[in-house]
Amino acid sequence: MKIEELATPTALLDRAKFQRNCDMMLARVRDLGVKLRPHMKTLKSIDAARVAIDPSHGGIAVATLDEASYFADAGISDIFYAVCITPDKLARAAEIAQRAPDLSLLVDDIATAEAIDAFGRANNRWFRVWIELDSGEHRTGLELGDPMLPVLAKFCDQSPAIELAGVATHGGHSYRCRTIEEIADVAEQERTTAVRAAGMIRALNIPCPGVSVGSTPTALHARSVDGVTEIRAGVYMAGDLFQASIHSGAQDDIALSVLATVISHKANRMMVDAGGLALSKDRSTERTQDRGYGLVVDLHGASLGESIVAGVHQEHGELRGAQLEQLRIGSKVRILPNHACMTAAAYDRLYVVDGDQVVDCWSRTNGW
Amino acid sequence: MKIEELATPTALLDRAKFQRNCDMMLARVRDLGVKLRPHMKTLKSIDAARVAIDPSHGGIAVATLDEASYFADAGISDIFYAVCITPDKLARAAEIAQRAPDLSLLVDDIATAEAIDAFGRANNRWFRVWIELDSGEHRTGLELGDPMLPVLAKFCDQSPAIELAGVATHGGHSYRCRTIEEIADVAEQERTTAVRAAGMIRALNIPCPGVSVGSTPTALHARSVDGVTEIRAGVYMAGDLFQASIHSGAQDDIALSVLATVISHKANRMMVDAGGLALSKDRSTERTQDRGYGLVVDLHGASLGESIVAGVHQEHGELRGAQLEQLRIGSKVRILPNHACMTAAAYDRLYVVDGDQVVDCWSRTNGW
Repeated sequence: MKIEELATPTALLDRAKFQRNCDMMLARVRDLGVKLRPHMKTLKSIDAARVAIDPSHGGIAVATLDEASYFADAGISDIFYAVCITPDKLARAAEIAQRAPDLSLLVDDIATAEAIDAFGRANNRWFRVWIELDSGEHRTGLELGDPMLPVLAKFCDQSPAIELAGVATHGGHSYRCRTIEEIADVAEQERTTAVRAAGMIRALNIPCPGVSVGSTPTALHARSVDGVTEIRAGVYMAGDLFQASIHSGAQDDIALSVLATVISHKANRMMVDAGGLALSKDRSTERTQDRGYGLVVDLHGASLGESIVAGVHQEHGELRGAQLEQLRIGSKVRILPNHACMTAAAYDRLYVVDGDQVVDCWSRTNGW
Repeated sequence: MKIEELATPTALLDRAKFQRNCDMMLARVRDLGVKLRPHMKTLKSIDAARVAIDPSHGGIAVATLDEASYFADAGISDIFYAVCITPDKLARAAEIAQRAPDLSLLVDDIATAEAIDAFGRANNRWFRVWIELDSGEHRTGLELGDPMLPVLAKFCDQSPAIELAGVATHGGHSYRCRTIEEIADVAEQERTTAVRAAGMIRALNIPCPGVSVGSTPTALHARSVDGVTEIRAGVYMAGDLFQASIHSGAQDDIALSVLATVISHKANRMMVDAGGLALSKDRSTERTQDRGYGLVVDLHGASLGESIVAGVHQEHGELRGAQLEQLRIGSKVRILPNHACMTAAAYDRLYVVDGDQVVDCWSRTNGW
C-alpha cells in the first residue's frame, strides 16, 4: 500500500530512521560499557520493543501499568514500571508479575514501601523494588542527603515482600539544557547521585545490584557512566523537534510523523485534518526554535521550507509557510511532532513506512 | 463501587451536572424557538448522546468519521460530520451512510463538491451536503461575499449525487471573547452570515432547508436566532475551566474531571499520577484565569482552595496550592480540565458518578 492511501490523520514510523535510532543508542550504550533498558513510553509497541531491546539485557522500562500488562502479554519478563507505585496499584502489579516475573517497581517513600510490605505479607507475594533518587530534576525521588534513604533501604532489605533491585534516577532536567556541555553536567549529576546512593546502601551491608540512570539527552552526552549498570532512554527511537533542538539527534532522524490531508484552502489560509487531538497541544519547541504544533514536510518527507502548523483547533490544523502553494484540497503532508510521546498517544497503531510504501502496521497500547 | 476504588488516572462524569447541563441547553434552544443538534465531539459517547439529543430533532454533529461510524452503529441516523470532507474520505462516508441514512457532509470548496459528484456518479451514491460559511472565525468556510458561494450552491443543486442540506457556520471566535456582550455580537455574526447565505441561495431558486449555527458560547448568549433552523453545541455537556471563564456555565457546572492519586510527597512538592497524557497539554486558561493544567479539588469535588496542577510530565502532574497538606501518598483528588474535549480524548470510557458512587460506565470512541 502507498502512504497516500492511508486514512488521515494517522501516525507514520519511518522504518529506516527508527532502526538507525535504535542501532545508534545500542552502540552508544555498548561503547559506554553498560546495558540499555529502552523506555517504551513513547512508542508503546511490542514490535518497536523487539528492535530496541538490548540483547545483553532483555529488559524494558514503562510509564504505566497498562504498558506493563501489554508487554507482559507479549512475553517480556523484565519490565521496570518507572513511575512511583501507589498502594492501590499493587493488586494489579501483582497480577502482571505473574506474567512478567521480573517486573520491578519504583518507590521514593517509606509509606509506599510499608504498603508493599503489608500487601506482600497479606497476599504471599514479593516485589522487586527500585529506590528513586532525585538527581536535580525535582520531580520525584529522594535527595541524596535525605535521612529517609537509609531507612527506606533497610526497610526494603528486611521486608520479606521486597527484593531491592537497586537505585534509579532520571535526569529529566536535561530537557532544560541548551548545550551539550550542560547536558553532560546533568548526566554527571545522574551518575554521581545514583552511584553515591548505591554506595551508601552497600555500606549498610545491603545488596544494591542495580544502578539505573537515564534520559535520551544524558544517555547521548554522558562523559562517564562509571558505577552505572543500566541506562534508560526512550524518545530517541522516534525523535522529535524538541529533542533535535537540544542536540538529541538531528531533525532528519525524526522517525515519527503524522500524515494529514489538506481539507480547506482559502486565499490566506490552509487547513489540514490534524488538529490538537492528532498532534497534541505540546508546545515544547516554543522554548527552543518555535515550530508551532509541528513542522510540515511533504508526503515524501521533503522540506516545505519552514512551514509549520501555526494553530490548532480540535480537528483542524492551520498551516503557515511560504512553500505551501503547491498544495490543494486532498493533498497529503507529513507533520513532524514537537514531542513524540504526546503525539504518538493519539494513535492505536503505527504505520511503518519505507519510502512511500506502507510495509507494516504495529500495534500500540494507550491508557492506564 | 466507590470512586476511590477506581484505578487512576481515569475520567469521571458527574451524572447530575451532566444531566443539568443537557437540560439547560435543551431548554435554552427550545426557548429560542429552534432545535438543538448536540455536537458529540467532546464526550464521544452514545450514552451521553441519548441524554443530549433534542427529541424534536434527533440528530447529532460529530468531528470525525470515526465518531460518525460509532454513532451509526449505535443507531443514530442523522449525523452531521461537521468538518470539511476530503475526496479520499468519501468511500468511508458512503459506507457509514448505509448505516446512518441521514449522514451529512460539509464542504467549503467547489473542488470538493466536484469530487463528491464524481464519486457519487461512479458509485451510484448521493450525499447530503452543507455549505460552510465563515462568520468571522477564519478557520474554514466561505465568506459571504465569496463569488464561489453561488457557484457552489448551483453545482450542488445540479449534481445528481448531492442534496443540499443547507448552510452551516461555527462562531468559534466566540472563544476569543471575554464578555457576554462580545459573545452575543459573535452570535449575531453567525446568524446573519448563515441567514444571508441561505437567502442568496434561495434567491437562485435553490432549496436551502437548513440554517445551522453554533458554539456553546453563542448558543447561550445569542440575542436572536431568526432564520436559523438548528443550533450545534457540544462542550456545554461536560463544561470546563475555560468555558466557565468566558461565561459558558459556572465552575460548579463542570461535569468532567480526572481522578488522580498522589504518588510522591516531598517537603516542597507533591505529584499525582495524572500528567500530560491524562490531562492534555491544553493551556487555554492561560489567557483567562490561569489554572495551569487543571484545578485540583478533593475526592468529593470540594474545593482545595485554588490548588492547581502547576506542571506536567508525561505521567506526572505537580500540584501547587495552600490547602494540599491533608493529602498523603495514595490520596485521591479530582482535577477539573482546562478543555474538556482535549482531556476526555485520553480515555476510552467515562465513569458516571453520583456523589461518591460510581453508578455507570459509558463507552466512548477515539481516533479517526
